[in-house]
Amino acid sequence: MPLIGKMLIAQGGGPTAVINESLVGIIKEARRNPNVTHIYGALHGIQGIAEENFVDLAYETEGNLERIAVTPGSILLSTRVKPDEAYLMRMFEVMRHHDIRYFLYIGGNDSADTVRIIKEYALNEDYDLVAVHIPKTIDNDLMENDHSPGFGSAARYVLQAFRGVEKDNMAMGGIYIGIIMGRHAGYLTAAAALAQQSEDEGPHLVYVPEIPFDLEKFLDDVERVYNTIGRCTIAVSEGIEDGKGNPVIVNLMENETDSHGNVQLSGNGLLGDMLAEAVKKRLNISRVRADTFGYLQRSFLGVRSDVDAKEAREVGEVGAKLAFKGLSGSVAMRRIPPYRVHYELVPIEKVARHSKTMPREFMNEEGNYVSEAFIHYAKPLVGGNIPEIAVLRSPPIPKTFLVKHGEERE
Amino acid sequence: MPLIGKMLIAQGGGPTAVINESLVGIIKEARRNPNVTHIYGALHGIQGIAEENFVDLAYETEGNLERIAVTPGSILLSTRVKPDEAYLMRMFEVMRHHDIRYFLYIGGNDSADTVRIIKEYALNEDYDLVAVHIPKTIDNDLMENDHSPGFGSAARYVLQAFRGVEKDNMAMGGIYIGIIMGRHAGYLTAAAALAQQSEDEGPHLVYVPEIPFDLEKFLDDVERVYNTIGRCTIAVSEGIEDGKGNPVIVNLMENETDSHGNVQLSGNGLLGDMLAEAVKKRLNISRVRADTFGYLQRSFLGVRSDVDAKEAREVGEVGAKLAFKGLSGSVAMRRIPPYRVHYELVPIEKVARHSKTMPREFMNEEGNYVSEAFIHYAKPLVGGNIPEIAVLRSPPIPKTFLVKHGEERE
Repeated sequence: MPLIGKMLIAQGGGPTAVINESLVGIIKEARRNPNVTHIYGALHGIQGIAEENFVDLAYETEGNLERIAVTPGSILLSTRVKPDEAYLMRMFEVMRHHDIRYFLYIGGNDSADTVRIIKEYALNEDYDLVAVHIPKTIDNDLMENDHSPGFGSAARYVLQAFRGVEKDNMAMGGIYIGIIMGRHAGYLTAAAALAQQSEDEGPHLVYVPEIPFDLEKFLDDVERVYNTIGRCTIAVSEGIEDGKGNPVIVNLMENETDSHGNVQLSGNGLLGDMLAEAVKKRLNISRVRADTFGYLQRSFLGVRSDVDAKEAREVGEVGAKLAFKGLSGSVAMRRIPPYRVHYELVPIEKVARHSKTMPREFMNEEGNYVSEAFIHYAKPLVGGNIPEIAVLRSPPIPKTFLVKHGEERE
Repeated sequence: MPLIGKMLIAQGGGPTAVINESLVGIIKEARRNPNVTHIYGALHGIQGIAEENFVDLAYETEGNLERIAVTPGSILLSTRVKPDEAYLMRMFEVMRHHDIRYFLYIGGNDSADTVRIIKEYALNEDYDLVAVHIPKTIDNDLMENDHSPGFGSAARYVLQAFRGVEKDNMAMGGIYIGIIMGRHAGYLTAAAALAQQSEDEGPHLVYVPEIPFDLEKFLDDVERVYNTIGRCTIAVSEGIEDGKGNPVIVNLMENETDSHGNVQLSGNGLLGDMLAEAVKKRLNISRVRADTFGYLQRSFLGVRSDVDAKEAREVGEVGAKLAFKGLSGSVAMRRIPPYRVHYELVPIEKVARHSKTMPREFMNEEGNYVSEAFIHYAKPLVGGNIPEIAVLRSPPIPKTFLVKHGEERE
């Protein structure tokens, strides 16, 4: 007997450039299913459930749905609330009242954990509820997934940014440090290396949280590159940790944690400023610049990976299809080499809370740049039609003036 | 008698997304002129002259020129060197040796000043040299110009960024501060307001260097917006000044000045961090984020204004045409309403060193947002096909649970 009732969709955690693709994928699939009596959206994730803050998604036109799909940011609004016992009880009172039977939550591993808790509560309460987690995260750190929707588009932003800033840094001469998001996983920072079209082009150095950060080693690396080519373009993860596993940035700031116990690493320029100061001192040059990419990399309008967008749409669609079969869990993305994606349902426990970091072989031996294996892994994810940068091919003019004046040999 | 000899092209100051369009415009025009015996590029601006560091631009294929045109960053590399007497003497020895007769320098007001000094020196030395300044700057602060090549593309980046971060900030709820480039002129910061598609959408507040910044007034503004709509998205210029004309950021840092006496305002996150801290304290909320857009806004690959690109190409082309008539000076861009551009040569003294700021009527009376006059001025510059963001149209579901339990009235 198929479950008949309302579907409730919500979004949790940090937005991405394609999180609304998944929402639209779910809605379009649900519209085709006669067992779904209504399609509700909860505003601000599970907060919208506890506060009975629902919208009726049936009213969206096909045209507006497609416009929503290409809009970055969680259109249903988001939350970082983690439900406790009282919160859960309240949520279930509201869901029962509205006869919610399908719950689809688009989010990262914290949201997966919320889905786990809700499904468990429903089982204990003997309340018929299908609960499916739809993956998304720019950090690309979800277990069971080859990669996560949202990552490819953020990686593409980082790629395009580094192609541009490298040309800028080349023109001005100096050190450029770009601080990239990624709490424990270095995938997004490593994606900066995809910018490189030819040798000597930046980024020249890449630092990720998976490899303990040693400031002296970092300064040695920068000095070596700078002395060789007169500039150095560097990608550093906001989450780099010292040898004891403490985030470097935490030693620099007063902390703020969210309800999941995550420290705020983004939204300030401390790490970049500290590294820039250290480089200035060591190299004794003034032109050292640091940019913290911040929220631009996950929300910038108009830059997304077509591959990522397509997959984000599909993962929502597949999630709804599985839910209609009465299956709860998390939709995972597997890769079929050389590159195709296969979606399957995995037990929610395998995705909830855990997080994946980069395998060691995605970095070089020295730990200051990516490996070929990483490039091979990440390249298909950033999509097609990536803008390229040109190089000047003009040959140098012989320095006949300098030679004539004996300042240079022929 | 037309001047016969070599043409030398160079680029100075900060790069833009379209500065290479101007270079290509000059090269293509010069290739058609039989009086130009060779087309040289000086590497790193006038440094390339003093160091006899030239490349032969004749070798570039048409195809590579077009790829160079769409590449951000000064492909001939840049400099901030200001020539003194000894430097000038050396430059002229080298130019005389190579029979340079046309000098075209693409840059801002500092580069215009360099052109002025070089032309003056040539006159005193009785050396036949045509020297033309080709404008560029993302700051949009060149005198005699309605707007400058480079501004439209940077403004478009800021627009797309703010459309995205506003959706992100809406989803997460809180305060978002974006710090935008602009030493004394607020044009680029003001361009954030072009992001707004409907009322209540951010940016909600805009602060520019032209209007003295008062921290208490700023905090009052932010608090008012936050209390009204539950979030606030803010654009702040890196160059905002206190009532005494001191940049706010200068009070926060150890300074570094370039050879033109400009203080380094970019490449660190201090201003954003300070403002975020102040807002956190005043509003007593934790989710306050600040991003400093930094070099991304002038170098990001793949985001440019088609209008800006076209004009940047033309301003180079026109500059070469004027040079071949034997005219020295600066190419200026005038607007013919409603929107067309007219190029004309103006005396270099009128552009060199001076800088233009925003007229007061481009801001509202309170000085915390742009006016309709600014939108009217800036809108044509950011180009066509600007991506839009969608809104959710779904109506709210009646809160029947809350009503039933007496927590909300019907």
